[in-house]
Order: sequence, then C-alpha cells, then structure tokens
Amino acid sequence: MRAIGVALLGLGNVGGGVVKLLADNAAAIEARLGARVEIRAIVVRDPDKQDRVIEIARDKLSTDMDAAIARRDVDIVCELIGGTTDARRAVLASIAAGKHVVTANKALLAEHGAELFAAADAAGVEIYYEAAVCGGVPIIRVLREGLASDRVEALTAIVNGTSNYILTTMAETRRPFADILRDAQKLGYAEADPTLDVGGGDAAHKLAILVGLCFDTRVDANAIPIAGIDRIAPIDLDYAARFGYVVKPLAIARDHGARGVEVRVHPALVPAHWLLASVHGAKNAVYVNSYALGASMYYGAGAGMLPTAMSVVSDCLELGRTIFARASGAAVRPRVHVPRPMLPLDEIRSKYYLRFGVVDEPGVLGRLMTILGAHRVSIAQVVQDAAVGPGAMVIVVTHDAREGDVRAALGEIDALPIVREPANVIRIVG
Amino acid sequence: MRAIGVALLGLGNVGGGVVKLLADNAAAIEARLGARVEIRAIVVRDPDKQDRVIEIARDKLSTDMDAAIARRDVDIVCELIGGTTDARRAVLASIAAGKHVVTANKALLAEHGAELFAAADAAGVEIYYEAAVCGGVPIIRVLREGLASDRVEALTAIVNGTSNYILTTMAETRRPFADILRDAQKLGYAEADPTLDVGGGDAAHKLAILVGLCFDTRVDANAIPIAGIDRIAPIDLDYAARFGYVVKPLAIARDHGARGVEVRVHPALVPAHWLLASVHGAKNAVYVNSYALGASMYYGAGAGMLPTAMSVVSDCLELGRTIFARASGAAVRPRVHVPRPMLPLDEIRSKYYLRFGVVDEPGVLGRLMTILGAHRVSIAQVVQDAAVGPGAMVIVVTHDAREGDVRAALGEIDALPIVREPANVIRIVG
Repeated sequence: MRAIGVALLGLGNVGGGVVKLLADNAAAIEARLGARVEIRAIVVRDPDKQDRVIEIARDKLSTDMDAAIARRDVDIVCELIGGTTDARRAVLASIAAGKHVVTANKALLAEHGAELFAAADAAGVEIYYEAAVCGGVPIIRVLREGLASDRVEALTAIVNGTSNYILTTMAETRRPFADILRDAQKLGYAEADPTLDVGGGDAAHKLAILVGLCFDTRVDANAIPIAGIDRIAPIDLDYAARFGYVVKPLAIARDHGARGVEVRVHPALVPAHWLLASVHGAKNAVYVNSYALGASMYYGAGAGMLPTAMSVVSDCLELGRTIFARASGAAVRPRVHVPRPMLPLDEIRSKYYLRFGVVDEPGVLGRLMTILGAHRVSIAQVVQDAAVGPGAMVIVVTHDAREGDVRAALGEIDALPIVREPANVIRIVG
Repeated sequence: MRAIGVALLGLGNVGGGVVKLLADNAAAIEARLGARVEIRAIVVRDPDKQDRVIEIARDKLSTDMDAAIARRDVDIVCELIGGTTDARRAVLASIAAGKHVVTANKALLAEHGAELFAAADAAGVEIYYEAAVCGGVPIIRVLREGLASDRVEALTAIVNGTSNYILTTMAETRRPFADILRDAQKLGYAEADPTLDVGGGDAAHKLAILVGLCFDTRVDANAIPIAGIDRIAPIDLDYAARFGYVVKPLAIARDHGARGVEVRVHPALVPAHWLLASVHGAKNAVYVNSYALGASMYYGAGAGMLPTAMSVVSDCLELGRTIFARASGAAVRPRVHVPRPMLPLDEIRSKYYLRFGVVDEPGVLGRLMTILGAHRVSIAQVVQDAAVGPGAMVIVVTHDAREGDVRAALGEIDALPIVREPANVIRIVG
C-alpha cells in the first residue's frame, strides 16, 4: 500500500493533536484514502523538551527545517509554527521544494496570502488551510467543493469566538463589556491584548480568506471596514430584546456582481428566532446563501487543540487524494482570481438601530425625526425613555436605508446642542 | 484534458438540474477536478417528451438502459429513476459493468442497501448517495471525510422536512395537526399518503443510512423504533413553551460501545435556546457530537430540485477524484461493517414530558406521583390545570429516567379509573 509522507513543522498543542489523531485513526484513514499517512519528520526548536512524542520514534525529531522539507519521502509540509516571519519562510521553502502545504495560520494567509498562493500556483502545489478559519467547522472544504457546482451569493458568519463569548455572557448577565473582558482574560478565554479579537481584525482576516474562496477575488484584510464589540452596552441588549433581536459579532460578505463585493465586520442585531441568534458562547457558524443550495449553515467549535488538529489531518487526507489524482492525469488548474472593487461602505443598505442620549426637553424627538427624514432615513420604531440618567434616551429602529444617508444624518444630529453623547449605531442583519 | 463520463438514468426535475449545473459550472468543475465531467448518455422512457434537453444534444437520449450502462466511455451511472424495482436492477447492472453509482434514492438504500453495497464492494466500485439524506446539506460528505480521523458519538437530526414544516406551522398558529396536514397536502408540501413522512418511516430510512456511515454497522430501518408527530397537539406546544421548550421531529443515534447502538425517531421537546430549536419550516439539520470536533451542526434545505441536483453533481466530482486516485495506486479498501446490537428502547434514559387527562377530584395528583415514584421516575415539575374540558389536565416533566420504568408506570396509571385518556408521552432531548 502506498503512503503519503508528512513533515510537521512545530509540535505544540495542534502538532501533538495531529500526531495523536493520525495514530488513533490509522485504519480508518487507510480505508478512506486507500493509502497510509506517515509522519516522516518533525521539526522542533528543542528536541529534548518534547515529552508528548514519547510514543512516536524520537529519530523523527530534528531542529533542521530545511532538511525536513527537502526529504524526498515528504509530500506534505504542515506549518504549525505560528507567527508570520519563520512561517512565511518555511512555506515558501516548501513550495520551492515542490511540497504541498497545510497551515492553520490565518495571520500568515492574511498578510502574505497573495505571495504564497502565487508561488504555489507557479509551482503547481496546493496550500490547504481548513484550520485557519473556524477550526472545528469544515467550512473551507464545504465552500471549495460546493463552489465547483454552486455559486455563493452571501455569507453571514460568526468567526471570532472571543467576541461571541463576551456578547453571550453580556446577554446572560447584563454586565458591562470591560468587566466581562477582564474575567475572560483571567480565565484564558481572551488574549492579554484583546484588540485583534474584540476589535474585529481577526474576523477581517478570516473574512478575507472566505471571500477569496467564494468570490474568486482577493480582498485586502486591512481594507475591510471593521467595528468592535466594545461599544455594545447591556442597555443595547435590553432594547434589542424589546424589538425581538439579539446582538451577535458578524462578518458579512455579499456579491453585488459588477458593483463589487460587499465586506464588513461589526456587531449586529439579528432576529431572535434566526439560527445565528442561537450560536452561543465561543462557537462559530457560517450562514451561506447560494444559488443551488439556498440557505445552509455550518456550526462548530471556533478553535481548540483537537478541532484544529482534526482540520489539519483532514487537509492532509484531501491532499493525499489530490496527489493521487494528479499522478493519474487530473490536470493542474489554478483558480483565477479576478480583481474586483470593494463596495464602499456608504453604498450598503441595511436597517439600523440608533441609540441617542439627549437632553430631556420637549421637541427633541421631533428634531431627530426631522433630520433623519430629510436624509431619506425612514423610521420603523421609536422608543423614548426619560428615566435614564440625567437626560433622556431615544432608540430608533429604521427601515432599510443607505449607510451614507444614515452617516450624514448622524453627523448633523451629533452636532446639535440637545445631544448629550454621540449616537450608538448598530446595523440590523437578517 | 481527461474527462469523466456520466450516464443519467432518468431526466425528471433532479436530472434536469444535474444537466443544468454541469453546463453552468463547467469551468469551475474543470478547475476543481482537473478534468471535464461529460454526460455521455441519458436514458428516458419517452425521448419525444423531453422539452428540457433542448440545449443538450438529442443524440444522447435513448430508452436503452443496458446499452447506456455498458458504454465504455461511461464511468459513473446516476440512478435518478426512483422506486425500488427498476432502480435496483439498474444499480446492480451498473455495478456488474464496473461503474460507480450515484443515487438520490433513500428507499432503495434502506430496502436493498446491504445487497447493493456488498455487490459494490465485491466489484470494487463505490455507491455515493449525498442526495438521499438531507438533499441540501452535505452531511454524507462531512461524515465520511470527518469519520476518517474523528469518531462520531451521537447524532440528533431533523431529517423530515414535512414533519418539521407541520410542527413549525403548529407552533406559529396553534392549529391542530389534521388541519395543517390537509393544507400542506393542498399546497403540495405533503404527500397524498403522508404516513411515511409524519409517521417517522422516512426519517428511519435516513437514520439507518447515517448510522451505517457513522458507526460502521448496519441497522434495519424497519427495526428502528418510530413515533409520529400526529399525537402532538397545540396544547403540548403551550406547555412545552411554559417549561422553556419547543417540539421538533427528531432522529437520534448514539454509540453505547459494547452495549450497542441507540436509534430512535420521534417528536421531542428541545430547549428553546438550543440551535435545533431554531431550525424552522421544511429545513433539515444534523447535530453531531464527535470526539475531536465536539459539537457541530449542518443545516440546509431538506429537498428541492436544485439542492438535490447539486448533491448529485458533488458526488460525481468526488467520484471523479476517486477514479483518478485509484488509477494511480490508491488501494480499494471497502469499509468493514460489524454487526452490532440495537439498544432496546426500554434501556434508553431520557427526561419525559407526560400529559394526563384525569377526572377533576382531590387525590388524583397524589395517585399519579406515587405510582411514578414507585417506578423510580423522579419528577422535576408538575402543573395541574382544572379548567381544561370536563376533567383536569396534569402535566409532568421528569428527571432522567429509564424508558422501561416510565412505560411500566404509565401502564399502571392508564388503567386507573381516574384517568380519562391515555397519557401523551413526549421525550425531552438536549
């Protein structure tokens, strides 16, 4: 029986999980692939510190990355180093050596994806990255294989587990953002520097990868409009509930054909009865609208050692099939990426939740409504609560409106002397 | 560029969809598979009645099934005939001719699966059936590929769209079962003979297929305990809501190791905040608990022309990859099916919702509680409503109990003179 040779670069939690899953499931993998998957080399910084590889032959361990990559019996290199400097070098070296690559490194793909995929296309090898987006959800596989005979129209996704955990906890406890974040950091659920997670940057990285896969184009992750969850207060969840909504951290993409691709990352009100509203805690989910399948959704763990390792192993199996298929004549056809414009944020249409802190005096509501109306922002519901702090609070839910019109209206409103604090704006989705 | 040859047996809605998707997505399919997928023969009863194939060459149409199957340039036969007699003959003939088979026919697999898969294994060909279970959810692919390096522990699934549609409508309107069914039949959402759908037989067929895939065994679909949704009344939904639940039509499987495999199909109360509670209308979803991924869920259309056709096309692409892989040395390793006992229904443990119609007199509640307690059925909540019809209604929610104990207690209770109608029993899941 033939075998597929794998080199692991890095043996942290995920690498250890890959070793374990390959060993535990050897028989099932052979049945599925019709070949063995063998780890031929493991590259680590310090071989003497590796307790977890007691079961596997120590002679596979080395510190020499280039030698491991160059081995003739290695078909696939799994980059599990993390970071972007050494990882980029390792992936480029693997490609240059004609090896397929598996990576769980979304920052690497977001920062250097264009360079790496171009190099892989030129060398006729593949980069697989199921573990880089929603570790425990086989979304890359579903989209890649679905894409071949379907057409994705829109994605609405919860891809940052930390943000979803914080908003879920806020919904359960009504405690403020900063308190929940501090506890999450103590418990290890949030990073010491949480900016990338709660600010939306991490979700933008993942969205850029998903858009590249679905819409045959590449978007610059740094150009995706992002808004963080730090501006969500418990009172917003109260009003959202009153209107039949919950607040979720979303990453959204929509294909507008010739007009371009709409991409954005922000917390949003979603209908309480919608499936995405029931994605709780640190879980991830991707809701897809496509031509043939209609609506479908894929839900699971966002991260974690075993889910991520499982995705890496699945990629190795899939690459094994690709290796066999190419050996028997399946042609290499790199996917064509067409440059497409990003739809300006001002051009998107949405319903909006607007919370205004105003002075408590007659005529205020009329002023707000008049300005919104003048900017073609039509109102679905208004609530005015006088009993909030020293002033009053006005909450508005709009009908579908153009983002640029809403922004213009809010610019005018926020400058009024009757306004005590700038409007809190949350888009409504679904 | 190489090509994979396909023969379509049948050109109804699904067959027409397959022709359209293959034509519309030819370029993307070539990029993904590295080969073309070409329809080489289409077998129909009456070629003159086929309006929908105007675009494709009429010379591919014929009435000669055996000739189409025997063509040397056909690698894959798609059985889209329906029924089980002609379809069985066609699939066996295809296997005998060394062709891989794609089918959307769950009745065929449920009735003749053991025979067909044994024949395929002996001939070294594959039978793929993504479209047979949850047409628009790629659940077979996810489980087959996930299985190779994960281990499924349990499935909780909504696999019958008609039942889910009826219960969703009952939840929205509180109209009785028979009324909703009659309207659904008028609208074409339910069959003239709805027994298979609302009685649970259809779900048992699908569950048997899923269990075969997940637990390396075969269960007889006809031996799966089923209960229909016809015994659910609007009042049950009222009480369910009061306790924080909704009612969903579930198919459940759980691996109990040496004790056997638990399988059952019945409506159940599920927590209102759980993801499955938000699967509305005719949609399907499969909630999976597995060793590596933990909890994951896959949601989408249960049926429909394009979703089903899309699943057939996906199977053809996957088989194309298998054909290439085998041609270059991937070994054929038929999956081993181990006979395993089915856990007797009396042995399962669950929480239960019990609704009793009793006479309205003192001491009744005490009698019920005493009998339940004597059978080790512990009570979590009780509601007694005197104002229901001529008698009273008692609703009980139990803690985890053994099904056999609950049945024994109810046998005793139903025989009491104070009981006006047999207890309505609904299991609680999740």
